[in-house]
Amino acid sequence: MSGPLIAVDWGTTNRRVFLLEHGAAVQTDQDACGVRAVEDFAAEVAAIRGRFGDHPMLLAGMVGSSLGWRETRYLPAPVGVADLAQALVFADARTAIVPGVATAADVMRGEEVQLLGAVAAGLVPTDAVLVQPGTHAKWARVAAGRLVDFTTAMTGELWALLRAGSVLAPQLAGEVCVGDAFRRGVAEGARRDLAASLFGIRAACLLRTRADADAASFASGLLIGSEVAARIAAIEQSTIHVVAGPALGALYLAAIQANGRRALIVDSHDAFVAGILAIGAHRP
Amino acid sequence: MSGPLIAVDWGTTNRRVFLLEHGAAVQTDQDACGVRAVEDFAAEVAAIRGRFGDHPMLLAGMVGSSLGWRETRYLPAPVGVADLAQALVFADARTAIVPGVATAADVMRGEEVQLLGAVAAGLVPTDAVLVQPGTHAKWARVAAGRLVDFTTAMTGELWALLRAGSVLAPQLAGEVCVGDAFRRGVAEGARRDLAASLFGIRAACLLRTRADADAASFASGLLIGSEVAARIAAIEQSTIHVVAGPALGALYLAAIQANGRRALIVDSHDAFVAGILAIGAHRP
Repeated sequence: MSGPLIAVDWGTTNRRVFLLEHGAAVQTDQDACGVRAVEDFAAEVAAIRGRFGDHPMLLAGMVGSSLGWRETRYLPAPVGVADLAQALVFADARTAIVPGVATAADVMRGEEVQLLGAVAAGLVPTDAVLVQPGTHAKWARVAAGRLVDFTTAMTGELWALLRAGSVLAPQLAGEVCVGDAFRRGVAEGARRDLAASLFGIRAACLLRTRADADAASFASGLLIGSEVAARIAAIEQSTIHVVAGPALGALYLAAIQANGRRALIVDSHDAFVAGILAIGAHRP
Repeated sequence: MSGPLIAVDWGTTNRRVFLLEHGAAVQTDQDACGVRAVEDFAAEVAAIRGRFGDHPMLLAGMVGSSLGWRETRYLPAPVGVADLAQALVFADARTAIVPGVATAADVMRGEEVQLLGAVAAGLVPTDAVLVQPGTHAKWARVAAGRLVDFTTAMTGELWALLRAGSVLAPQLAGEVCVGDAFRRGVAEGARRDLAASLFGIRAACLLRTRADADAASFASGLLIGSEVAARIAAIEQSTIHVVAGPALGALYLAAIQANGRRALIVDSHDAFVAGILAIGAHRP
């Protein structure tokens, strides 16, 4: 696969397409055509080639789930880039889906490309702890360059549920930023008493003990902080690599630092591109 | 107030009316006319008198909130039955609203009647820890017969949010019962790692490591178990009094016992009636 390659990070609700040439992304596009919005995947893939060129394609993420084009099996961890390349599922001769990864108790689809891509590109060491924030945040351990274990926390989904339909919804509509309110939320989250801490946000509103403009940042800190505190309690590493975009990355950086560990950010798009290039290089 | 008395436990979405005569409930009725469904409270109160008789009325719960008829202030804890009686807010000469109670960090409206009623009727000791399961579960400490402190956990609301709109919703539609799956959920909840434990339910479905019929009971055990573990870590008492109906009461009983404490059930309607009678007896 030395010529151009189209890579698609195809999630449940969003999709990002990259045209890769000479080891780098030269064109990219993001839209809301996640797998839930697509019925005819072959037609969608043809349309992508119409826009990005008639090149081989590697697809990753929920496109390989029961909601997607072809349901691919989960590879059992530990998994390296070569394992993903050897287990590609070809929808046609030039279009392949990257399989997901499972442990005895957890699953991922799509994140494996970013995690192993970050390692393959030297953005993180070959022995490291990485976190990918998101709807279903992944905390992963790589050893000797292979993904050996991971845990998913549905922090982002809890945030969305609380923001959309809970008693706290009116308070959570505001913007989230890293500041004193966020850090107080992170400290509260370290108590790992989520159902009670969440109601405290409502009580603070009724008792007027916190400015309501701070409620969203506090709540975000609480949710991320309780995730970070729980995960960090189980690991020894002094550095956590945060694979994320800049907004979520800044929140996790602050929460990890507040919990006494060093945090380094890896751009999630860079990591995805690196992962696809590495898989492409290993392709049989 | 020695004659008949009408008591209304008037919540956000539900309402329960009791006709009290000679120290006992002689007639009761429950409907979905919570404060959110009512516009003209005076007319509703007149309609209740039309059905239950032209008697004095005591109203408790969200009817005293900003959503209700008259917004009553929160009494600062510690609070006893006599304090509630002295702070009744009269909507008219024969219709009074029981105020809520606040600590520096938490609030309640309506639960104070049940909690202090359970004490006043001798259903629990004058020094005790009580829990009222529900949408917003209350864990309260009474000392010398007065409500001195409490903490709210929005466990029931989290359950409703997850059941209605999360990735877990298809798995949580089943019935919840006290059994092995519930107890395994309680044990998982004691890890106090909620966002990760919840995603484990999804992973167990995809990996087929747990019968899906058990998912709702496991999830309920997980949520209640994490609440119970967090609260019990902060208290020394060997006995917890569960003020509840039979279904939720059985779940909390099992979760508390699994966490090594004794649990005793107090019927929540009996406690409410006892609380209203005690307030009526102290009425100035």
